[in-house]
Amino acid sequence: MNLLLLDVSQVDADGRATVRGTALEHIRTVLKKGAGDTLVAGVVDGRIGTATIESVDDGAATVQCTLHRDPPPPSVVTLVVALPRPPMLRRVLFSAASMGVKRIHLIATARVEKSYWSTPSLQPDKIAEQLRLGLAQGVDTRWPIVELHRRFRPFVEDALAGIAGDGARLVADPVPGAAPIEPATSPVTIVIGPEGGLVPFERERLAAAGFSSVHLGPRILRVETAVVAALARLG
Amino acid sequence: MNLLLLDVSQVDADGRATVRGTALEHIRTVLKKGAGDTLVAGVVDGRIGTATIESVDDGAATVQCTLHRDPPPPSVVTLVVALPRPPMLRRVLFSAASMGVKRIHLIATARVEKSYWSTPSLQPDKIAEQLRLGLAQGVDTRWPIVELHRRFRPFVEDALAGIAGDGARLVADPVPGAAPIEPATSPVTIVIGPEGGLVPFERERLAAAGFSSVHLGPRILRVETAVVAALARLG
Repeated sequence: MNLLLLDVSQVDADGRATVRGTALEHIRTVLKKGAGDTLVAGVVDGRIGTATIESVDDGAATVQCTLHRDPPPPSVVTLVVALPRPPMLRRVLFSAASMGVKRIHLIATARVEKSYWSTPSLQPDKIAEQLRLGLAQGVDTRWPIVELHRRFRPFVEDALAGIAGDGARLVADPVPGAAPIEPATSPVTIVIGPEGGLVPFERERLAAAGFSSVHLGPRILRVETAVVAALARLG
Repeated sequence: MNLLLLDVSQVDADGRATVRGTALEHIRTVLKKGAGDTLVAGVVDGRIGTATIESVDDGAATVQCTLHRDPPPPSVVTLVVALPRPPMLRRVLFSAASMGVKRIHLIATARVEKSYWSTPSLQPDKIAEQLRLGLAQGVDTRWPIVELHRRFRPFVEDALAGIAGDGARLVADPVPGAAPIEPATSPVTIVIGPEGGLVPFERERLAAAGFSSVHLGPRILRVETAVVAALARLG
């Protein structure tokens, strides 16, 4: 935890906040901090600065915050990922949040196992947990949106144009003729397929929607590796 | 498993091999392949091609291999990573192998917990397991070397010059003045510090050894994310 991420509702008008739960646990047992020590802190969708610990015990810590700087600029990348299996899903959400992605769309494709949609990891509080850890890792406060699209066709035909907007449109798909990913400075939407790849129908629909194929080198990467590699190359 | 990776000793002079254990399990239960089906196969440090399944039952599969192409070119990157905690270590080995890294050095630094050196994940067979999975993911056969360096000072003073050779020398360290990582086409050694970062003495010794500081963007990344991001940017 490189940042104590507070909710707006936790911080009073004088900048004082009460910390409980896992954040308190982390302060006490991992960071081993006590009264008088300082932490890097920030407020969700707000500024970043310093929290000075006023008191800490088993049940709660009280901190006094001075927030003076803006969070780092968000990534220009909108991430569209075929829903991976649960442990990988958690790492994808964490990594994307830690790398500054603010728009994440999890989609169904032919090779996404239907059972993945019923994992507890997709419940809003579980998604929020990974996003919070990712923001705390990356020292960022801007909360990412995560949307689920359980059917490929309505997603690609009805939703995707609005999601991609005027930005560049890429699909990480190592087909012959795919170009290497180049750094981006303006908005870009990238689609990362599932383990096993996209099927021809999905490729066709994405091509029809203006998505160009790009590759991440000569090797087939696991979805979680491909997500980080694509973000690193684009960022 | 995108590649059935066979040991040289498994393949007879006619290209026939017997497959048991986890690879057999994977063929039967995940890939659901049987007699007459084909797989992508390769031999450790050798060529890649097709394995046709001749027979398969509970105890073993027999495959006939035709290996006609070379593995993809190795990464130009030599990876030096502060030993991470065990689950992350496994993912770092897997990711690095899947991305074509052939030289991995795990090192001690002040902020590497000493207990990490006694994890079973560092035993040769456990390291080999992750390398094998990574090569199978990336469809590669060239076996990476992994070396352990349990003391920072002898590593940086005696070993590092030989490891880095004539190649570029980088340390991923977001200090003021660090440059963004640029793509590399010739050999490069990159040092990735531990969670919590390098300490001043380590920074000084690496600088004295000719290592320039580079950054991976405005955010602090987890070690496993930083490794993939650095490889993606360099590759």
